[in-house]
Amino acid sequence: MQLLDGLLVSKTIKQELTEKVAIRKSLGKKVPHLAAIIVGNDGASMTYVASKVKSCEEVGYDSTLIQLPSETTEAELLQKIHHLNQDDAVDGYIVQLPLPKHINEHKVLMAVDYRKDVDGFHPENVGRMALGLPCFLPATPAGILELLKRYNIETEGKNCVVVGRSHIVGMPMGLLMQRNDYPGNATVTVVHSKTKDIEKICSQADILIVAIGKPLMITKEMVKPGAVVVDVGITRIEDSTKNSGFRLAGDVDFQQVADQVSFITPVPGGVGPMTIASLLVNTFIAVERKDV
Amino acid sequence: MQLLDGLLVSKTIKQELTEKVAIRKSLGKKVPHLAAIIVGNDGASMTYVASKVKSCEEVGYDSTLIQLPSETTEAELLQKIHHLNQDDAVDGYIVQLPLPKHINEHKVLMAVDYRKDVDGFHPENVGRMALGLPCFLPATPAGILELLKRYNIETEGKNCVVVGRSHIVGMPMGLLMQRNDYPGNATVTVVHSKTKDIEKICSQADILIVAIGKPLMITKEMVKPGAVVVDVGITRIEDSTKNSGFRLAGDVDFQQVADQVSFITPVPGGVGPMTIASLLVNTFIAVERKDV
Repeated sequence: MQLLDGLLVSKTIKQELTEKVAIRKSLGKKVPHLAAIIVGNDGASMTYVASKVKSCEEVGYDSTLIQLPSETTEAELLQKIHHLNQDDAVDGYIVQLPLPKHINEHKVLMAVDYRKDVDGFHPENVGRMALGLPCFLPATPAGILELLKRYNIETEGKNCVVVGRSHIVGMPMGLLMQRNDYPGNATVTVVHSKTKDIEKICSQADILIVAIGKPLMITKEMVKPGAVVVDVGITRIEDSTKNSGFRLAGDVDFQQVADQVSFITPVPGGVGPMTIASLLVNTFIAVERKDV
Repeated sequence: MQLLDGLLVSKTIKQELTEKVAIRKSLGKKVPHLAAIIVGNDGASMTYVASKVKSCEEVGYDSTLIQLPSETTEAELLQKIHHLNQDDAVDGYIVQLPLPKHINEHKVLMAVDYRKDVDGFHPENVGRMALGLPCFLPATPAGILELLKRYNIETEGKNCVVVGRSHIVGMPMGLLMQRNDYPGNATVTVVHSKTKDIEKICSQADILIVAIGKPLMITKEMVKPGAVVVDVGITRIEDSTKNSGFRLAGDVDFQQVADQVSFITPVPGGVGPMTIASLLVNTFIAVERKDV
């Protein structure tokens, strides 16, 4: 078994980006600039955003963190978004989810100019991805593709099972693994809450990508010997052996299946760091597009 | 075995639309107006476009057929498209493909205002489809969904195999069959040229949707007894028993498999008429959106 070490690969990607940014600087070109909007002060969201901003600094990007109070109105947020759409200094930006309940999340995401939508959530980007056109790929699926690529995982003609059909991971992951490209050209089956016999379908996967948010759901019997396993889930579960009383668990029971797989992502340190790396890559793409 | 009679269902849909148009007229509301652009005089394309225009007339729509000479430049075509985007009288329009080789098809399709893109080809519509948002569904997949619906075919939890991953049929079909809605909620596997063991995968399908353009490819061994079979293919093949010397064949060997299936589309008279019906439905949706 070999680890798909997302933390390590993300560091390599950051190093590559750092060098590219330095080259841009030396040529007098614009440095990439990522902005992030967060509304309210939810602890987990603040942590995520802070880590995105910190990553920008690591690679030499400019970054702007826009913290708005939780009582911000939808109109005020939309105005801020309109401003970011217009602001040439900002190459890409993200709106940290979830938003407070009085704000229509969909309306806000639709207001983001798709050319700055480095999260890849806008329908224009999703459609372009589905059609194989230039776009910002959604960060988590893009990170998984990059991880497969860096470990030279063969995907063509493989049976790939994606567990979960969410709009930000499962659905795009299925499309990307079935596209005519590398990584891709796999025979993809997407399973979900309405699927019968999930166990059997998973157990036939050469590549198993799990993004359903049910900790430890994937057990030994559900994994084909020699499979490549990518675990997107990350949930706090109780663990009395830890001082904190909890630990982070993926959707895959790593302990049970690690012995029998060829490659597997750890949790944490697998898909998570790759997601942030993809966001940085998308922001770099955003600034490069302006060069043309 | 029961036929999924697309010709019959499409007539019912046209009748329903005729009544709806009459109601709109009686209320003094705008009658739907579909325009079609064709460049050059390819025989098959002329036939397709003519049949779309004729269908508009049948249901009481206004229609405009714009025939441009084959030497039309890309700039001239783009100008025409710009004009149609602006023209409030036209609710939806289509650009008949293929275009002459000196015109960039992609550039042309991207220029169509997605709010008038009743073919559902624009990335904005494809992305909205993928995200479950209001959109124009691509006509062939939408026609297939409607056919399944009219015959009350259960899709939830069924194994659905889509043969082919084209941008206008296979890819969207997979997304629609896996979405959380009816028809949908199936466990979808998309197979394609790089898939190993297509025969075996097809033979496990409860619902088999074939859109690969290889006449008679799907044989008896590839169809599960009791399956629902939808055949999108339509190709001229030699047939010495016919006066014309040819007949139209689907991707499925109808003669071989008809006995063992529960439902199957004939070719012709299955998916084809449903595609045109979907175009009419999309145009109706387009005019209704303006009411709001």
